[in-house]
Formats: sequence, structure tokens, C-alpha cells
Amino acid sequence: MGEQSSEPHKSDVRPLKIALLGCGVVGTEVVRLLVTHQADFAARVGVPLELAGIAVRRAGRRRDVPVDPDLFTTDAAALVRRGDIDLVIEVIGGIEPARSLILAALENGASVVTANKALLAEDGATLFAAAEKHGADLYYEASVGGAIPLIRPLRESLAGDRVRRVLGIVNGTTNFVLDRMDTEGTGFSEALEEAQELGYAEADPTADVEGFDAAAKAAILAGLAFHTRVLASDVHREGITEVTAIDIESARAMGCVVKLLAIAELSADGSGVGVRVHPAMIPRDHPLASVREAYNAVFVESAAAGQLMFYGAGAGGAPTASAVLGDLVTVARNRVQSARGAAASTYAQLEVHPMGETLTRYHISLAVDDRAGVLASVAAAFSRQGVSIQTVRQEGRGEDAQLVVVTHQAADRALAATVNDLEELDSVREVTSVMRVEGLGDK
Amino acid sequence: MGEQSSEPHKSDVRPLKIALLGCGVVGTEVVRLLVTHQADFAARVGVPLELAGIAVRRAGRRRDVPVDPDLFTTDAAALVRRGDIDLVIEVIGGIEPARSLILAALENGASVVTANKALLAEDGATLFAAAEKHGADLYYEASVGGAIPLIRPLRESLAGDRVRRVLGIVNGTTNFVLDRMDTEGTGFSEALEEAQELGYAEADPTADVEGFDAAAKAAILAGLAFHTRVLASDVHREGITEVTAIDIESARAMGCVVKLLAIAELSADGSGVGVRVHPAMIPRDHPLASVREAYNAVFVESAAAGQLMFYGAGAGGAPTASAVLGDLVTVARNRVQSARGAAASTYAQLEVHPMGETLTRYHISLAVDDRAGVLASVAAAFSRQGVSIQTVRQEGRGEDAQLVVVTHQAADRALAATVNDLEELDSVREVTSVMRVEGLGDK
Repeated sequence: MGEQSSEPHKSDVRPLKIALLGCGVVGTEVVRLLVTHQADFAARVGVPLELAGIAVRRAGRRRDVPVDPDLFTTDAAALVRRGDIDLVIEVIGGIEPARSLILAALENGASVVTANKALLAEDGATLFAAAEKHGADLYYEASVGGAIPLIRPLRESLAGDRVRRVLGIVNGTTNFVLDRMDTEGTGFSEALEEAQELGYAEADPTADVEGFDAAAKAAILAGLAFHTRVLASDVHREGITEVTAIDIESARAMGCVVKLLAIAELSADGSGVGVRVHPAMIPRDHPLASVREAYNAVFVESAAAGQLMFYGAGAGGAPTASAVLGDLVTVARNRVQSARGAAASTYAQLEVHPMGETLTRYHISLAVDDRAGVLASVAAAFSRQGVSIQTVRQEGRGEDAQLVVVTHQAADRALAATVNDLEELDSVREVTSVMRVEGLGDK
Repeated sequence: MGEQSSEPHKSDVRPLKIALLGCGVVGTEVVRLLVTHQADFAARVGVPLELAGIAVRRAGRRRDVPVDPDLFTTDAAALVRRGDIDLVIEVIGGIEPARSLILAALENGASVVTANKALLAEDGATLFAAAEKHGADLYYEASVGGAIPLIRPLRESLAGDRVRRVLGIVNGTTNFVLDRMDTEGTGFSEALEEAQELGYAEADPTADVEGFDAAAKAAILAGLAFHTRVLASDVHREGITEVTAIDIESARAMGCVVKLLAIAELSADGSGVGVRVHPAMIPRDHPLASVREAYNAVFVESAAAGQLMFYGAGAGGAPTASAVLGDLVTVARNRVQSARGAAASTYAQLEVHPMGETLTRYHISLAVDDRAGVLASVAAAFSRQGVSIQTVRQEGRGEDAQLVVVTHQAADRALAATVNDLEELDSVREVTSVMRVEGLGDK
């Protein structure tokens, strides 16, 4: 790739040509940074990078990007097939046409950088197979945790270690909502409205608040951590719409805070993995508890490294563009030396265990009759399902009598069955709060 | 290593041969993990890894490692020159013989993984030039922050971004000592003794408490963040031996905690970098403030990504081995496909500014006479040096009268000169505490 001796960006060096698919919030920022720091990119890659085309949905729209307007095209399919494109950046999102465009790009020998979590978690295998077949790179740091380096540390830095558990706050919208509920005592709807006003939540917040976004990211993280193919549909998913002010208050009473966690963990015998997204209480002194507002963080427990945490802005145009461009530099360098980065590693092919078999622990608040024998009947309901109680405490008297139970670890199925049984007990007037507890250790 | 077909480690695949230099705490753990997870390494690299020799200082010592005793040799120089070695792991530490051995390994075409911060910060340029010349990889994730992925994120993930500042807690011993001083109110000597009893500090703690260890790491981080060659000797260094219980108490009074920080930052005009290690007060709500005991964390501010933090165990056999083996997998994969990872990037060659020119802010406590005109004379001392005061408050009366001053940002030289001037003032009985303040923003 060039005959030069010392300086990499002489005029006789062929630049690498980039096609950008999508020019929304992230794409605009990618263009701005590519143009502004052109010389830095050339120095870091070894050859100049040239923006050769930008595919957009609608032509003629006024765009605030400092490039030749002739670069814009509405024909993305023709752009990726042009034959002279070395690198393709996909920031359209969604399944189609993103998938077809990425596949066409790989077939044409281009390396691809994508931020598309939904596509990777639904059909990553097809994309990775195509990259493998055509000897191209497929990088996706921006798909999880925005600017936070996560993919690369999991795929490369921890490649000599054994990950046991990944616990992540990977959705900024829900973290913002839960943080507001915690700090201001507001209910879910009110906190969501505030998030929408501030631009942290979309007009249709379903993908975020129902946990779909986090589930796609959980699938990607689980696949990397355990060298196993995991789909978004493998992930047990519960959103935050049913989290109440009572739940938040119950968490506070036991020194915890409620977070929407994406969890991927090896089963105790190492035979399978559990992957799940749900709200959970975590102790306030856990490193994840201090992740405020719309920030993201991923906490990793591994055999040799111990506990690691990665923290930063999980979304937004500039942070996502930072991750995209970090990948772009790597795939461009690989291209210069005709090499490829680490391919998808799924050699372990562990079974994904159903949620019912996953070991969890529950925090349960019950409104009960304040009379002798109630505790005995409640305790019996737990023991019938083989669930062991760690602590139980009574709060209030008479009309306000509450029992608060925290269990030891048990199969989630047994815990759920226990809650059903409790609802049937005469002495239990209402199950007022049920939530899993994480970060207390395996007991 | 198995005759099966679809798997990449067929019997006709030549294994990659590894020479391990040093078999202390880290080396022992490296051997244990390599042997225990042999099949995983083969799957992740694509070919088996074979431990071909282990160089130790003393032969015949009983070692708790599960390998053929014939692998041990006291002739490290012969081992790296054997001709069949693909990968060399250097965990001896120190300048010599580590440097000569690494250079010999590279000259013989082997790729090298090292944890040697002192050597990299003193003479990294020679090593990188040799790696470049002989087409080999030189990886060093374990040199800073133990198991925490830092080198790779800075070198690769942020390659498309512009780092503005790196603030790190990169020495576990000093963080443990300062944490104990903060939580238990003990003095420096007492906290250091406790650290020594618990194995967090060495019998001769000089390298840690005087900041030499942190300065080497600061040089490495600064070089990566700013694409510039920085030596340990370029780093302004102050240790924690003069941090007093009064300093810790003063920090607490203003909602801060004292940490030994490694700081690398771009100057305001982008023309140079400042690199320094010294104790500083940081606000208790700063993410670095919650880094307790012997943990490490590095906080990065960059133009597009915003704020990132990386947290984990900064030392110890297993965490360091995790980082070494992550690098080993990468350089082994590169070897399999005859590629090289990113080389050292020093294209920017920014000037390293002297400490006196670096902008800092000071927290200064003064024992003063309690009479009219004192504040005026103190304020005049600041203004003579062109230093602007952000807040000043009086504490105590009469004999116990104290003035506590927090400045705006100013050149460190002007701040130091101000302290000298204050010591000469008749109305100032004693300058009781002087410390820089970080993490308050640039004002």
C-alpha cells in the first residue's frame, strides 16, 4: 500500500475510501470529525481517509455537514457496490435495509463498522459469516454503551481470562427515569415525561422502557463474554414500566437502589449461560449504584482479573461517533496491512438456560394481617418451594403491618411460584413489591 | 492437541511456542492459566500455544507450577535466541536484563508481551523501534492498571477521538494509605504500616509512596493519549509522604478527598502536554473519589466521547496475568495471520510543558492573626502573583484563626510563588496545608 519510506500520507498513497450509510445525529458527527481531524486520521491510519459517498433517505434536505453536496446519494445499494469503497460505516439502524447493505458491502470486500445493536442481536451470525467468507472486518464498538470501550476489552483484553458475570446499565433512558424516581420520589410516568422533555426519551419510549434495547445489548455482551451465540430472543426481558414508588422506597429501606440491569452469567457448573434484563435492587455501595442520570456502565467479574467496571456516556451523537471512528481507524489499519481483526468467537457454544433455571434472589414486601401465625404461614410458603429465607423483618403494626423478606439464591421459577403462593394466602392482604436483588454475592 | 477436523487446532497445525521470562507472582499465575485453559487458548487463537521455556534467576527452587521441570532455565539470553520461539512474555521487571532480553527476542522475530512499566517509561522508544524494524508486536497492557483494559482503549478505541485529559489513580499502595487516612483519621506512617502488614506495601515503599511507580505509568498513559513520546523523567512527581492528617481534614471540610493522581493533559492552546503525579483534593462526587482501598481507576475526558472511567484491580498476580494473557492472545492471533497490531503512535510529538507553566488551582490553609487587615494583606499576596481567589473563608477565632483559600486556575509557578510570599507575611503564623485541587472544572 504505497512505496513511501517514512511519512505515511504522501500524495502517491492511495487514500482509503469510505461510504457512510445514514446521516442522522451520529452520521453528522462522524462526518464532522472525519473532516475536522483529517490529518490526525491520516497519521493514525498510515494513509488518508476519503469520504467517498453518503447515503441518505431523502435528497435535497439541508444538512449541516462540511462536505461537497455531490457526495450525498439516496441510492445506498449502488454506493456499497461501487467497487472502489474500502470501508463502510452503517449508522442507519434497524434490520432492513441495513442488513442487505452490510452484506453487499462485505461481499464487495469492504470492511464494515456498524452501531446497529438490533441487527447484530437478531442476525449477527449471518453478518459475521459473510465477513469471514470475504476476508473483511466487521466492527461494532458503538452498538453497546456508546463511547465506552466494551466490545474491544471483552473481545481482546479479556481473551486470556474467564468471564463469570457481566452486569450492565446499558440503557440511558431507563437509568435516567429510575434515577429521577430515586432522587425526587416521583412515579414512573412523571419521571418518563421529564426524560422526554429533556430529550433522554423518545416520543414512543417502548424500545427503552420495555427493555428491548437493553436486551439486544445483553445478547451482544453475553456472546462476547462467553464465546457463544446469543440472540435478543434468547434474553429474558422485563422493562421498568411496573416499577413503583413503593419498590424504590423498599430498595432504599434496605440500602439499595433500583437499576435496570442487563445480566449475563455463567451457570454454577459452567454448562450454560443465563442472559436477562430486568429491574433489580443493588446495594448503594456497589460501583454500579453510583451511575447517575443517563450514564451507562458495565461491571465485569472474571476469574483472574476480578472486578472491572467501564463507565461513560452510553448514547448521543458525539460519543457514538467516537466509538465508530475508533473502529474505523482499526479496520483501516488492518486494511493497510492486509490483515483482519479478531473474528467472532463462538467456539464455546454454551446453552442459554431459561430464566426459570437461573439462580436469583428476591426482595418481597407483603401487606399482612398483624396476628400470631402469619409469619409461620408465610415461611411455610417459601419452604414449600424449597426457597430459603435470608432475612425477614416486620414493619408497622395493625393496618400497616408489612413483612419484608429477602431470600437466599434459588431458581427463579421457584421464587416466582412462591410469590404466586403468597398471593393465595389468607393472611397476606397484598404482595406490594417484588423485585430481584443483585450484587450481594452468591448466597 | 486433538485430531478433530472442524476445530482450528489440528495436529498438523504447528503450535506457537512461548518463552516466559520470570516466574514470580505474575509468572506463576501466567503458567497456571496457560496450562489450565489450554483448550480455550487454542480455540481463541486458532492454534495451540506451547510453553517452551521458563527463564528464572535461580535454578532448583521449588515452584508451584504444573509444568515439566525441564522447561526451567537460568539462561534467559539463550532461551530468547533459541530460534523456535514465537512469543516472549517478560515479567522480570526493571531495566536490565529485561531490556536486552526484549531486544534480543524482537531481533529474533518474536513478538513480546511485557508488564514492565519502568522500562517502557525509560526507554520505550528503543523497544518500539526494534519491534517496528523486525515486524514484531510489542504489547504492554499489564504495565498500567493491572487487569484494567487501558492501553487498548487509549490506543485503539479512542483512536478516532481527541483526548483532552487523563486523570488516574494508578498506584494501589498509595490509594490504600490515603483511603485509610481518610476513613480512619490515621497519620501517614500508621497507615503505611498497616498497608505493609496487609501486603499492600513493600518493605521499602519508596517507589510507591514517592510516586515513581505512578510517574512511569503517567508517562505511558500520556504517550498513548497524546501520540507523543513521554519519559518518566518528563513527569513532575510528588509523593504522598508529606500528606498530613490536617490536609485530609481540610479536604473533608470542603467536600473533597485526597488522592495521588497521575494527570496528563493537553494545554489550553493544544501546543503541549503537562504530565504530573501529585496528591490532590478531588470532590467526593467525582467518580474517582469512590475508588477505595488498593483499587485503581483511570478517568478520561475526550472531545467526542466525553467522560469515561475504567476501574479495577491495579496489581496482583492474577489480575496482571489476565492482562498479559489478553495481550498474548492478540499477538498470537496476529502471528497466525502474519499481521501486526497498532504500532507506537508518536506522530504528534507535542512538547512536554514544565510544571511551572501548567494551570492548576490550590487549596491553602493559613494560621493567621485574628485582626483587621489580615485578609487584605493575604489577598494582596495572591494578587501580586496574578492569582485570582475563588473562595476564602475564616475558621476559628483568636489563637485558632484560620484562613482557607481556594484559588482559580493559575500557572503552578505563580501559585507556588504565592505560597512562598504568604510564608513571609507577618500576619501569617503558618501555612498549615497546601494542596492542588482537581476535578472542579476549568475555572
